[in-house]
Amino acid sequence: MQMEERGKIAEDAGILLAATDGYTRNAGLLAIAKALKENETAIIAANQEDMKRSQEESLGAPLLKRLTFDADKINDVIQGIQSLVELKDPLGATKLSTQLDEGLDLYKVTCPIGVIGVIFESRPDAFVQISTLCLKSGNAVLLKGGHEALATNRILSKVIGEATKTAGIPDGWVQNLETRDDVTAMLALDQYIDLIIPRGSNSFVQYIMKNSNIPVMGHADGICHVYAHEDADIEQAIDIIVDSKTQYVAACNTLETLLVNENIAPTLLPPLKEALAKKGVRLKGDAATRNIIDAEEATEADWKTEYLDYILAIRIVPTLEAAISHINTYGSGHTDVILTANEPTARAFLTFVDSAGVFWNCSTRFSDGFRFGFGAEVGISTSKLHARGPVGLDGLLSYKYKLLGHGQCVADYASGKSRFTHLPQETNCPI
Amino acid sequence: MQMEERGKIAEDAGILLAATDGYTRNAGLLAIAKALKENETAIIAANQEDMKRSQEESLGAPLLKRLTFDADKINDVIQGIQSLVELKDPLGATKLSTQLDEGLDLYKVTCPIGVIGVIFESRPDAFVQISTLCLKSGNAVLLKGGHEALATNRILSKVIGEATKTAGIPDGWVQNLETRDDVTAMLALDQYIDLIIPRGSNSFVQYIMKNSNIPVMGHADGICHVYAHEDADIEQAIDIIVDSKTQYVAACNTLETLLVNENIAPTLLPPLKEALAKKGVRLKGDAATRNIIDAEEATEADWKTEYLDYILAIRIVPTLEAAISHINTYGSGHTDVILTANEPTARAFLTFVDSAGVFWNCSTRFSDGFRFGFGAEVGISTSKLHARGPVGLDGLLSYKYKLLGHGQCVADYASGKSRFTHLPQETNCPI
Repeated sequence: MQMEERGKIAEDAGILLAATDGYTRNAGLLAIAKALKENETAIIAANQEDMKRSQEESLGAPLLKRLTFDADKINDVIQGIQSLVELKDPLGATKLSTQLDEGLDLYKVTCPIGVIGVIFESRPDAFVQISTLCLKSGNAVLLKGGHEALATNRILSKVIGEATKTAGIPDGWVQNLETRDDVTAMLALDQYIDLIIPRGSNSFVQYIMKNSNIPVMGHADGICHVYAHEDADIEQAIDIIVDSKTQYVAACNTLETLLVNENIAPTLLPPLKEALAKKGVRLKGDAATRNIIDAEEATEADWKTEYLDYILAIRIVPTLEAAISHINTYGSGHTDVILTANEPTARAFLTFVDSAGVFWNCSTRFSDGFRFGFGAEVGISTSKLHARGPVGLDGLLSYKYKLLGHGQCVADYASGKSRFTHLPQETNCPI
Repeated sequence: MQMEERGKIAEDAGILLAATDGYTRNAGLLAIAKALKENETAIIAANQEDMKRSQEESLGAPLLKRLTFDADKINDVIQGIQSLVELKDPLGATKLSTQLDEGLDLYKVTCPIGVIGVIFESRPDAFVQISTLCLKSGNAVLLKGGHEALATNRILSKVIGEATKTAGIPDGWVQNLETRDDVTAMLALDQYIDLIIPRGSNSFVQYIMKNSNIPVMGHADGICHVYAHEDADIEQAIDIIVDSKTQYVAACNTLETLLVNENIAPTLLPPLKEALAKKGVRLKGDAATRNIIDAEEATEADWKTEYLDYILAIRIVPTLEAAISHINTYGSGHTDVILTANEPTARAFLTFVDSAGVFWNCSTRFSDGFRFGFGAEVGISTSKLHARGPVGLDGLLSYKYKLLGHGQCVADYASGKSRFTHLPQETNCPI
């Protein structure tokens, strides 16, 4: 089937799905959980096929680990579905209610975005997480996973589509794309697709943004900073910096550039170097840093680099203001942390740093939908429009204005015959 | 000064402006109101200059009327500023508060978007309305008005910039662009500008969307529908259709295509034709319509046309479902109305029609920020991301996540040593 036809099917399914009640969508979620369990053997067999092919293609060990979809991982995604079922229905919530005049009531009511295209890495659990978040929020979804997971995603798509059909969810709401040509075709379908969520490398996300008129939600870079102010607790600072840099080095919320106040640098840097050395972290530093500890030379290019590796750039700054200015200049607006004992200093940092996550005395690695308690995430956004930061169910919602009248015309308000009352109300939209 | 430099100045001003408190921004608004009054004579003189030139260039009467900025209009915008001052500070509001663990608290807090570029029509009052909405919401703004209003916008920009500077608002937060080259240069400044709001013709908005990587908020088309169901009240239907079509024919929320249920068409169309004829509306109709009343022939192209004129296309449909399908196929997702006496019918229409505004028994013309009680609007959005429908202060906001910790590291949660509590809280962010 051509992508255009598939886009139209997704749009039609999305409009029907938007009108389903929360019970039906939860029944769909539970049917998915049940079907995953029932089809466990076939799913694991498909994943073995992907694993075997990827091993033959010499895929690296960390990627093979992410590609694995075994009984444990299946149980994990089933548990994730259970918690999604327990969440309140995000649709049909009245966000604003205003009496414009007697018998003329305005309601702002949440609804799904419509059709979402997601391009994601080779983690089959992501297929389940993303599609179930979309189902809970009433969105149709086109998914394109990494080609390494071809067989696994194919069976997951079939199992999920069939299970939800039985539960009364419109056919075509979830569709699996398998080729790059499908992705290229999808990027042109702005008449059917409302949002693209690309997850992957900087250059990949940039490519998507430049090659589609469809709005894109996501992040290209994750250049995250920790700034240690002069009054930071040394022991705590070392723990947080080590965690931010090494707890999972390939993530977008990993620390890339450490900024150190010049007054604390001589005390902090030597023991920090020792702690990071134990984790195998290479250090790059500006001249002032290299006056205190051994490090490779850091240049301007390092401040703009997302290493995603056991490398840390260090710069010594004279003031809080210099740290803020560095972050707003070189950062990617993802997650930035200040270490300080002083509340007004923290307040200034959290106010002036223009990033999705601004943290005080804790690790950059907390910047994540699960850790934030959102149940799951479809990605992290560094845009300031729509959703910013980790994106859970809320980021998959739009709203519409429902206006319920009794024959009112604008001419009567323009002539002064009628007058707006504009009274805020607490009532939910009755229809 | 080059646009790139002006963009950088706006970004810097935006970061400082984001950190101002609501009192300072209100002081800035009051200073603008005072300065507009004090400079009334000079502003009116500048506007006379624009009017004289435009008359010589044979600008049409409706456009000349919009270009006029006299004492009455100045008083209107000053009143608008007063109501903006009275609105609650939109910044720094805690939208979500979650205890992730003891001593690790997450807050989602509203903040400005940053720098906004607005390209708008030749209404000088729009310059004041847009810039003051941006000031209230803490956003820096670059404005490019219609060239007819060149002299008026130039003095307004000067008066507003100087007045706010005295009130402690950072210099450079409001900047007036005067040439098309400035606009072209602005569209490339995605490193400094966070959002473009174009107001104008379909082709102009399409041009902006295709020629910038900066997110765009607005609407290209306004193809609005009224659907008269078989049980609609005839007299009320005629009033609402006449108001929707003729109350202000050049607006984006004006009715363009009327859908009529076949069971009511023979009763509704003849008296409707008479009422519309009194207003000078030309009718185009499908074959079924032309079996009942005289009308020009409507073709497929008419269903896709925004006339912005005294022309109405009419199509007879057999069912509610056919009406919904027509609207979702040909509409622009702006504002669509159902006329019916029956609540379940209205509910189905409001649910299945995928538009920003879905109205029951009232005029399409209510779709407007002022009428919705938002104080003012920067535009109407037909996108489903970020803001949808009339956009007031809320649409000019983003948010950031502030996470306040005491040394927490993710490794402890990964190892099971610590556990997330994820407790919802009612507290506002303390810093």
